[in-house]
Amino acid sequence: MSNPMVSSLLNKLANYTNLTQGVTEHEEYENEEGVTKIRVKSPQMGTFIGVYLPCMQNILGVILFLRLTWIVGTAGILESFAIVVMCCTCTMLTAISMSAIATNGVVPAGGSYYMISRSLGPEFGGAVGLCFYLGTTFAGSMYILGTIEILLVRIKHCLAMLNNMRVYGTCCLALMALVVFVGVKYVNKLALVFLACVVLSIMAIYAGVIKTVIEPPDFPICLLGNRSLQNHNFEKCVKTEVIKNVTYTTKLWELFCDSRHLNATCDEYFTLNNVTEIQGIPGLLSGVIKGQWSNKTNFSNNCCVVIKLSDSVSEDTYCRVMDSTSTCVCIPFNCVCFRYRFGDSVKKNLVIGTLAWPSPWVIVIGSFFSCCGAGLQSLTGAPRLLQAIARDGIVPFLQVFGHGKANGEPTWALLMTAGICEIGILIASLDAVAPILSINGMFYPVSCVQFFLMCYLFVNLACAVQTLLRTPNWRPRFKFYHWTLSFLGMSLCVSLMFISSWYYALVAMSIAGCIYKYIEYRGAEKEWGDGIRGLSLNAARYALIRLEEVQPHTKNWRPQLLVLLKLDSDLGVKHPRLLSFTTQLKAGKGLTIVSSVLEGTYMTLGAEAKSAEQNVKSAMHAERTKGFCHVVVSSNLRDGFSHLIQSAGLGGMKHNAVLMAWPGAWKQAEDSYPWKNFIETVRETTSAHQALLVAKNIDKFPSSEDRLGEGTIDVWWIVHDGGLLMLLPFLLRQHKVWRKCKMRIFTVAQMDDNSIQMKKDLQMFLYHLRLNAVVEVVEMHDSDIAAFTYEKTLVMEQRSQMLKQMQLSRNEREREIQSITDESRISIKRKKSSVVETLKAPNTLQVPSLSISRDMDEESHGNLNDNAPATPDHRVHMTWTKDKLITERNRNRSEPNVGVKDLFNMKPNQSNVRRMHTAVKLNEVVVNKSQGAQLVLLNMPGPPKTKGGDENYMEFLEVLMDGLDRVLLVRGGGREVITIYS
Amino acid sequence: MSNPMVSSLLNKLANYTNLTQGVTEHEEYENEEGVTKIRVKSPQMGTFIGVYLPCMQNILGVILFLRLTWIVGTAGILESFAIVVMCCTCTMLTAISMSAIATNGVVPAGGSYYMISRSLGPEFGGAVGLCFYLGTTFAGSMYILGTIEILLVRIKHCLAMLNNMRVYGTCCLALMALVVFVGVKYVNKLALVFLACVVLSIMAIYAGVIKTVIEPPDFPICLLGNRSLQNHNFEKCVKTEVIKNVTYTTKLWELFCDSRHLNATCDEYFTLNNVTEIQGIPGLLSGVIKGQWSNKTNFSNNCCVVIKLSDSVSEDTYCRVMDSTSTCVCIPFNCVCFRYRFGDSVKKNLVIGTLAWPSPWVIVIGSFFSCCGAGLQSLTGAPRLLQAIARDGIVPFLQVFGHGKANGEPTWALLMTAGICEIGILIASLDAVAPILSINGMFYPVSCVQFFLMCYLFVNLACAVQTLLRTPNWRPRFKFYHWTLSFLGMSLCVSLMFISSWYYALVAMSIAGCIYKYIEYRGAEKEWGDGIRGLSLNAARYALIRLEEVQPHTKNWRPQLLVLLKLDSDLGVKHPRLLSFTTQLKAGKGLTIVSSVLEGTYMTLGAEAKSAEQNVKSAMHAERTKGFCHVVVSSNLRDGFSHLIQSAGLGGMKHNAVLMAWPGAWKQAEDSYPWKNFIETVRETTSAHQALLVAKNIDKFPSSEDRLGEGTIDVWWIVHDGGLLMLLPFLLRQHKVWRKCKMRIFTVAQMDDNSIQMKKDLQMFLYHLRLNAVVEVVEMHDSDIAAFTYEKTLVMEQRSQMLKQMQLSRNEREREIQSITDESRISIKRKKSSVVETLKAPNTLQVPSLSISRDMDEESHGNLNDNAPATPDHRVHMTWTKDKLITERNRNRSEPNVGVKDLFNMKPNQSNVRRMHTAVKLNEVVVNKSQGAQLVLLNMPGPPKTKGGDENYMEFLEVLMDGLDRVLLVRGGGREVITIYS
Repeated sequence: MSNPMVSSLLNKLANYTNLTQGVTEHEEYENEEGVTKIRVKSPQMGTFIGVYLPCMQNILGVILFLRLTWIVGTAGILESFAIVVMCCTCTMLTAISMSAIATNGVVPAGGSYYMISRSLGPEFGGAVGLCFYLGTTFAGSMYILGTIEILLVRIKHCLAMLNNMRVYGTCCLALMALVVFVGVKYVNKLALVFLACVVLSIMAIYAGVIKTVIEPPDFPICLLGNRSLQNHNFEKCVKTEVIKNVTYTTKLWELFCDSRHLNATCDEYFTLNNVTEIQGIPGLLSGVIKGQWSNKTNFSNNCCVVIKLSDSVSEDTYCRVMDSTSTCVCIPFNCVCFRYRFGDSVKKNLVIGTLAWPSPWVIVIGSFFSCCGAGLQSLTGAPRLLQAIARDGIVPFLQVFGHGKANGEPTWALLMTAGICEIGILIASLDAVAPILSINGMFYPVSCVQFFLMCYLFVNLACAVQTLLRTPNWRPRFKFYHWTLSFLGMSLCVSLMFISSWYYALVAMSIAGCIYKYIEYRGAEKEWGDGIRGLSLNAARYALIRLEEVQPHTKNWRPQLLVLLKLDSDLGVKHPRLLSFTTQLKAGKGLTIVSSVLEGTYMTLGAEAKSAEQNVKSAMHAERTKGFCHVVVSSNLRDGFSHLIQSAGLGGMKHNAVLMAWPGAWKQAEDSYPWKNFIETVRETTSAHQALLVAKNIDKFPSSEDRLGEGTIDVWWIVHDGGLLMLLPFLLRQHKVWRKCKMRIFTVAQMDDNSIQMKKDLQMFLYHLRLNAVVEVVEMHDSDIAAFTYEKTLVMEQRSQMLKQMQLSRNEREREIQSITDESRISIKRKKSSVVETLKAPNTLQVPSLSISRDMDEESHGNLNDNAPATPDHRVHMTWTKDKLITERNRNRSEPNVGVKDLFNMKPNQSNVRRMHTAVKLNEVVVNKSQGAQLVLLNMPGPPKTKGGDENYMEFLEVLMDGLDRVLLVRGGGREVITIYS
Repeated sequence: MSNPMVSSLLNKLANYTNLTQGVTEHEEYENEEGVTKIRVKSPQMGTFIGVYLPCMQNILGVILFLRLTWIVGTAGILESFAIVVMCCTCTMLTAISMSAIATNGVVPAGGSYYMISRSLGPEFGGAVGLCFYLGTTFAGSMYILGTIEILLVRIKHCLAMLNNMRVYGTCCLALMALVVFVGVKYVNKLALVFLACVVLSIMAIYAGVIKTVIEPPDFPICLLGNRSLQNHNFEKCVKTEVIKNVTYTTKLWELFCDSRHLNATCDEYFTLNNVTEIQGIPGLLSGVIKGQWSNKTNFSNNCCVVIKLSDSVSEDTYCRVMDSTSTCVCIPFNCVCFRYRFGDSVKKNLVIGTLAWPSPWVIVIGSFFSCCGAGLQSLTGAPRLLQAIARDGIVPFLQVFGHGKANGEPTWALLMTAGICEIGILIASLDAVAPILSINGMFYPVSCVQFFLMCYLFVNLACAVQTLLRTPNWRPRFKFYHWTLSFLGMSLCVSLMFISSWYYALVAMSIAGCIYKYIEYRGAEKEWGDGIRGLSLNAARYALIRLEEVQPHTKNWRPQLLVLLKLDSDLGVKHPRLLSFTTQLKAGKGLTIVSSVLEGTYMTLGAEAKSAEQNVKSAMHAERTKGFCHVVVSSNLRDGFSHLIQSAGLGGMKHNAVLMAWPGAWKQAEDSYPWKNFIETVRETTSAHQALLVAKNIDKFPSSEDRLGEGTIDVWWIVHDGGLLMLLPFLLRQHKVWRKCKMRIFTVAQMDDNSIQMKKDLQMFLYHLRLNAVVEVVEMHDSDIAAFTYEKTLVMEQRSQMLKQMQLSRNEREREIQSITDESRISIKRKKSSVVETLKAPNTLQVPSLSISRDMDEESHGNLNDNAPATPDHRVHMTWTKDKLITERNRNRSEPNVGVKDLFNMKPNQSNVRRMHTAVKLNEVVVNKSQGAQLVLLNMPGPPKTKGGDENYMEFLEVLMDGLDRVLLVRGGGREVITIYS
């Protein structure tokens, strides 16, 4: 650092390289520490020369100047200016994003690939990196071809030798590869020379343009209509000549017509248009620039500023008018442009050469060196990129390219790159393929641009994502970035991709997409801390918070299960069929939380909890249950389960139903704890307004591999408890296991019901629910069923009401609803706990569904929850005829003591007898009808209020399910879960 | 239903209407019930005639036939066929999606608007619905203009009267609106008549086309180059005439040139091209169809199949050649086509009329009725749609249009629609605006098509979303749908939008986007159970499950806080500043779970828990803490907190740090429970590998409204515990409160440290961490600090090591790492619990960071967690020189009993003295340096192993923090949280 400023700058420029090399500024510290320690001295550059300039030069060279004059030629000066501004902005913004990422910690080899892969994950990084690699490599082919073409055509003037392009190209490639292999430092030293050549060429051309003011060049071009003709194969630019009063046809005529005669059949375009000769290079003062300002206004002038040369007749001497879009050669300060294979030479002169000042040779030699240098740089940069990708091991078959020579030179990668380059050379000079590949002669440049732009796009994306996520690790030293800038850069990259060629853009994107998918499926899983993870976590958090705000609509209701598992002494899952059943019920959708509890303290049982969680997870994996798993340690099981029921899930993702196994051996067990725990759990789900599913004989349930061929799922719809009972068979039948099972729905008619009408109503109800089921109505004596239903009299009554509603016309229904609404408004004033809530607006109705403040007894006994704020669970709507409502209310009033009694706490034996009578009678009917069913679904009555009746309750359920094989007791969560509305 | 099949079908056809009316099939049930009940009898149709046919006719009429011949003219038969197939497919697929949605429950008024809004939410529904409304209304304007033009130009032949278009158009509109207002049923009856007219017109034209085979019509057209000239203003189709050997110019010449003379200056296009006369209607046998197969091959034939009429010279008699895209009139079975204002008439004859058989009048009258009918239908349908949208109340300012007449007729909406229609009429006939609006004369049709296609797009989207989500409520009776079909339909809709006009497509989309945003911000919040909610829940679930699989990378680490709150006796938040501090620390990002515990059972305290949760939520809202809230009821507090620490969060979204307040009054309290609970919580977070933040004097912390102007955040980096200590000030400074505070970092040098070098190293370390901080090294005697650090000797030693590593060059570092890797491979074999883990690959390093199997004593005492599977938390990498490693290891071996003792359990008083000595000495230094700091961050030592030392531990911490105002004790979670790598 003791050198004078200028010489140090020069030294830096000499070491200046265009290679992607990441940030090297942190290495400056090494200098301060003393050079003795550093054995391999690498070039040291500041941020500006080391990072910013190469980026800029790369971007400018490829995108901006590459197509600048072509753009001016086709789009006019004004639009071109807009495009150039876009390109510059894009460049600047990308450079800003890149600077931010590069200064956010150490960036090892790989440059933009490293940045993208570490910010957006291996898939994006690999896809974009490989595309970038391909782009660089193909650019190499292009440069080599350019070099050869300049050498042969311009310098040696041997057009004929072009057929040996492949041979010369291969030689040139081999030579360049050797140079790169032998010493990268020579390439780096040459870079400055090459840069100077480019600058000189540009200057020569602009000098020539200015010269046209003083001395316009003579460069005639023949136009047919508004299309230019290539002057290879004819001499005079006229259709016919009149020599001595006789009209002769010209050579041009012969090209377009089938004979020399004047009455020959000619090409239609030839016939319809006149032939004119104009000045190919009109010069600055000719006014062509003025006409060029906006291309739209001037349909015949869409050509370059100073060079008028439209799509020419191709070299095979027959008139093949290409498409109507005129193309122009551009000023060849960058040899890319030479890929207009013949478009750029008129009368075997290099168009641009005639323009350059002082000599056409400036251009020729300048462009030769430029091409040559760019080729070398491609061959240096591409292998290093490939090596970086290969070393990361994300693409298995690329592994070998990670190796290098002792000094780290990527030998294998260089060979690979040279190979691809060679393919590029062979293909491009293949006569048959060339016209296809080089549509408008722009195959290589456009595809390179696409790949490079894609890379910039993702650099911007990476910066935007990181900034928006605000990960604590995102602390770039470069402060002048903002996500809006990156976002703008992204949009510009996409726009430029599609502006330059929407077709190639799509192709490039699909190539990148394929690589992405390949890496996703085949690549090694890498955790590099990419932002995508943070993005999805953020999205998830946002969704959970937002969804917590609103109660889900009935239409969106789906069972979100909390599965309460028991573990055996080895911490294994006791009833794995519970998980099978969960899988069958959920078919992979919605929330599933599988949970269990260990007794003890976390400090001592932490490890056990972990291994239990692993066991549960592997059981879940085996049963294909997709969901979350919690095994918690609690000082007692009851607290643990209580806690899970209360607080499992997060935000908008909470369970709304609990699934557990029926404690089959509760009678035999010495310890009363398990079944007491069971009843407490039932109570708890009830207070938490969660639905409850209890499976009897869970071990006899089918595994997920079974396919139940025949049989039925029988629903016993005795009381209407939200509709879950009807929904469950539908859900089960989505799974392969139950697909072939038919759904049957049984309902119990009391003596005062018209059972034929009831059946008809139920059928219609099911039609409106879009459920396919066989309907059967079973008649029972009121006394037989009373014990089961009397705590839910209103619920059962409403079931009938709901069916009857179906008979009414839609218009009537609406009017009914209106009257109920009015009615309920009044009734609310009269009676605080109104059965029917106000219906909000006639057309947002969700009828017919029922509202009922849960169990009858809750209302009268004065539930402890009464002072809780009215939860939206209760806010379900119903249809009810006015008179029915009044009748119902009167009825409730007239028998205040019957409806409110807690059956299981009845003291006298008589109640026990009555209860058992009901259970036995109902069980008789159910067994009679559903003995052979694959699954029986039954309403589950509510648990007794006080613990005294617990054993009776268990007994009741036991008798109810007696003799049935697979039973699912279902208790609703206090809300409607099914609706007839779309 | 007793009528014979045919008559019932006819009846249905008579009642057939094109109005958007949703599903009416469910009303069929009303018939069966008896007509007496039904007062307003609405037309009854089956699914096919009621749903499928109107949809098809609407789609076909607007999209398909509207532009068919125009498409054939411009694109050629082959491409047109492709487009027609696309349209048909799109139509069919949309109809399928619509059928699925419509049969998934009752769809009231609003049709596709209702479907979209109920499936995708009010924003999408409103945006698309209003666009659809606008489309329908503008179609109305278009039809009315067509009607007038036919009446005036075709029937009355008064071209001059066209200036009064506005007057006539308004009259026509008023008349039609009146008809609609008076009786919709007449419109419905007329619909069939109009349909018949369209069919007849089509038949007449095709008959005419066939007639050309027998008798080709004489219809000469003058072409200039390949553009047709309108034959109004000249008679002969030649440039010059030779009459008696003298060449005269023609009238045509005058139109293009500035004088009659042969040497006049003429339009360039005129000069360059010849004039020819061709047959305008070449007839079927002329071979023009063959040439038309693919338009690409034949540049001069881009015209209609049988009518050759390109873009004509406009009526102002001067040659304004439009753009080069030739347009053609299409067969006018739908009057839309007449909007080619003059393009369709040549020599004042209707082109298509000359073709029609038997008489041109069939076409004129047919198209008149067709236009008229279509106008009426638009005026009937649009207001009903507007009414449906208004009634939903999603767009506040549209409320008034929800009202209607007594019979439900949308009077206000009709007025509004007529108003918009009138604007359309006025604008379209404005001479100045017309050319702009009617680019290619296609403004109205194209914009309508865009809006309609957008609607279909969203119908398909709705079906696809619902199908993919598999909500239990999605049970359409129509079974022949699939999400791939809907998806294909969507893609086709988008493609067609862009094919018909990408420009209009973007405009239509941005209009819809604006309405969407408006409804999002201003509209009433509606919960219609849309699928978007389900979609985001699904995405969240997927993200949580996927993210659970991998441990987050150090780069992605951010504090995910579990805040343990205390509640006062009124269930309010005791220390709201804890929430303020959370907000300041998180700046709205990442997970925050705020939790508290109530003592009791859920059945009795459920309501209290709910209200406590409400209190916490409102406190969180007040403090702007974004996050989740859990208040759980537990039989004892300890279990509750333990449970929260174990199982709060879900899947990949779990907390990794616990924040709590220091129990300030622990000494004064009679009950030892609170501080014992505190220590247990510390122990529990340690076993759960979670970081712990304890805030002393939390009530003195700044509120989120405060702005700390000056001052510092002081970090006392005594031992390296994962880097959290350094990260926290950075995070705090992101928030406005702490933004102006400077970060200072203090480190304690022991006597054998080179404190100058240490400072330098630390500065470099911070530079690499991209943290701005003032560094200060405090020297202390080993004995003074011993008690604090000796349980963490290695941790402290590693801190120094880490700093020294920074001095090494990158190259050296890499070599070092390699040697460590090798070393550690060997050491693992020798010693099971190796301090340094294997580094995976040289370039995926995450160095320099430390690995330490938590506290020293854990290792030697044999922690109970030892048999737990090695969690990835421990898998952190470090750099270490080979010799240092060996030295360190030897040192550990030589003093096995000093490092392992549990300080707080030392029996003799001497240890108590020593401990207190350390605390006092350290406190002295800290108070001395950081007395005025806004916040002091200190390492928190680990809790004693056994409960005996609990009180000593509390005492130690108390003394350590004595005299400091705001202190945050920080204990790492056992993993690195900060890295120098990008």
